[in-house]
Amino acid sequence: MAKFFVHEKALCESETIGDNTRIWAFSHILKNVTIGEDCNFGDHSFVESGVKIGNRVTVKNGVAIWNGVTIEDDVFLGPNCVLTNDFYPRSKIYHAEDVKTLIKKGASIGANATIVCGITLGEYSLVGAGSVVTKDVPPFALVVGVPAKVIGYVSAFGEKLTFKDGIAKDSQNKTYKMVDGKVSLEA
Amino acid sequence: MAKFFVHEKALCESETIGDNTRIWAFSHILKNVTIGEDCNFGDHSFVESGVKIGNRVTVKNGVAIWNGVTIEDDVFLGPNCVLTNDFYPRSKIYHAEDVKTLIKKGASIGANATIVCGITLGEYSLVGAGSVVTKDVPPFALVVGVPAKVIGYVSAFGEKLTFKDGIAKDSQNKTYKMVDGKVSLEA
Amino acid sequence: MAKFFVHEKALCESETIGDNTRIWAFSHILKNVTIGEDCNFGDHSFVESGVKIGNRVTVKNGVAIWNGVTIEDDVFLGPNCVLTNDFYPRSKIYHAEDVKTLIKKGASIGANATIVCGITLGEYSLVGAGSVVTKDVPPFALVVGVPAKVIGYVSAFGEKLTFKDGIAKDSQNKTYKMVDGKVSLEA
Repeated sequence: MAKFFVHEKALCESETIGDNTRIWAFSHILKNVTIGEDCNFGDHSFVESGVKIGNRVTVKNGVAIWNGVTIEDDVFLGPNCVLTNDFYPRSKIYHAEDVKTLIKKGASIGANATIVCGITLGEYSLVGAGSVVTKDVPPFALVVGVPAKVIGYVSAFGEKLTFKDGIAKDSQNKTYKMVDGKVSLEA
Repeated sequence: MAKFFVHEKALCESETIGDNTRIWAFSHILKNVTIGEDCNFGDHSFVESGVKIGNRVTVKNGVAIWNGVTIEDDVFLGPNCVLTNDFYPRSKIYHAEDVKTLIKKGASIGANATIVCGITLGEYSLVGAGSVVTKDVPPFALVVGVPAKVIGYVSAFGEKLTFKDGIAKDSQNKTYKMVDGKVSLEA
Repeated sequence: MAKFFVHEKALCESETIGDNTRIWAFSHILKNVTIGEDCNFGDHSFVESGVKIGNRVTVKNGVAIWNGVTIEDDVFLGPNCVLTNDFYPRSKIYHAEDVKTLIKKGASIGANATIVCGITLGEYSLVGAGSVVTKDVPPFALVVGVPAKVIGYVSAFGEKLTFKDGIAKDSQNKTYKMVDGKVSLEA
């Protein structure tokens, strides 16, 4: 028996949805969608058939997730952020296949940001509000602007990181290491 | 007895809503929201619990208003403009408190603009369509771009102002004064 | 008898809609709208009274089409792209008339792009995702950025065109000619 919640004004056509996931008003989950546990889909969100979404994902209002987009655990999709799956869309023309986008574990996309397809957002990367992302984003990087550029790094908890001699600590006592410009979280 | 209008396809969970306010199809007003008189909420709009909205406010389609945002009288929120309340959002992580945003009397936010939180939009300021606002906007200022910058001034009626010797008049015969780069409306 | 499809969760108040057009969940077509054949309106789309839309038009999710906007045949409107009809909007102030926008045959607007009003998008032009268009776009031009600028040309089929001695061919064996910087499709 389903243990996920669908608001009475929402429409959910899939059953492969994890426990405690909540789907709010005027949202629409199509058939053949897989969603993990403890996710939250804000009002007016939409998930197309074929999409796979991990656990503890937050999808804020007005976000549509298209076939070709994969979303790992702990991702945050800000309000009205926009994903895509075609570089040169034309009405009624179906190109060979959907261009893939991968949103890795813990990444956050800010409000109203646009993610051009064919891109990977690295683990715990963060896209600033209103940015347009046109190339891959490294792990823990904070990118902003049009097109989006790296302007710093953020922790898994959501704070700016300040590195000294290649080491940074966050408020949760976690340690981050920067080696050759690439940031990782110490186990 | 309520004298506001809720479309049969909308969902309104608050009763503290002023006379003649209209809430259109597929919109959702949560509990514990206060809205003034003569407001208009376009289709697919959303208001989170805790929000206070003044009188004669126009909210166009697809706009979500989050806790932490305060909206004074006569504000215009253009279609799909986006507000925020967290600088570094992460899924399932709740930072100390919502970052505040204040939209002052008569301000207008253009279509699809993004307002980063922690900002005040001054009285009768106007944010151009598609802009990303990252700092306070002065009264009557017109800001555009990413990040948004002041490129001129607009009247309360919605026209570009041309100043001569620190004085400008609009089509409604109102007089605006610019002193030390700050614009005000003569009483 | 109507041969167009309206999803049971959509609201369609016009009957002047062509055969095989489909209107999906949580969309709202107001009265006095004319829509051609074989169109597709994604979830959470909206069409205001007075709008005329051609045949084979694709409107992706979350798009609102306002009075003052005309949409010719074969147009593609990407998810959450935003149209406008007022340069300096103010709440409760109704300027002389809606500013017109014309989207010509075959044009595509990328995801989350913003089209400032008063503009013509030329035949088969393509606006990149997240761009803000502030002036006319020539036929077959690809424009990106804020404000959007021409960075190349695309075919009717949706591929980048490479011109040599003023001539380009696409994968469909169609020939394009560039004369004085203006691109056209050979009959």
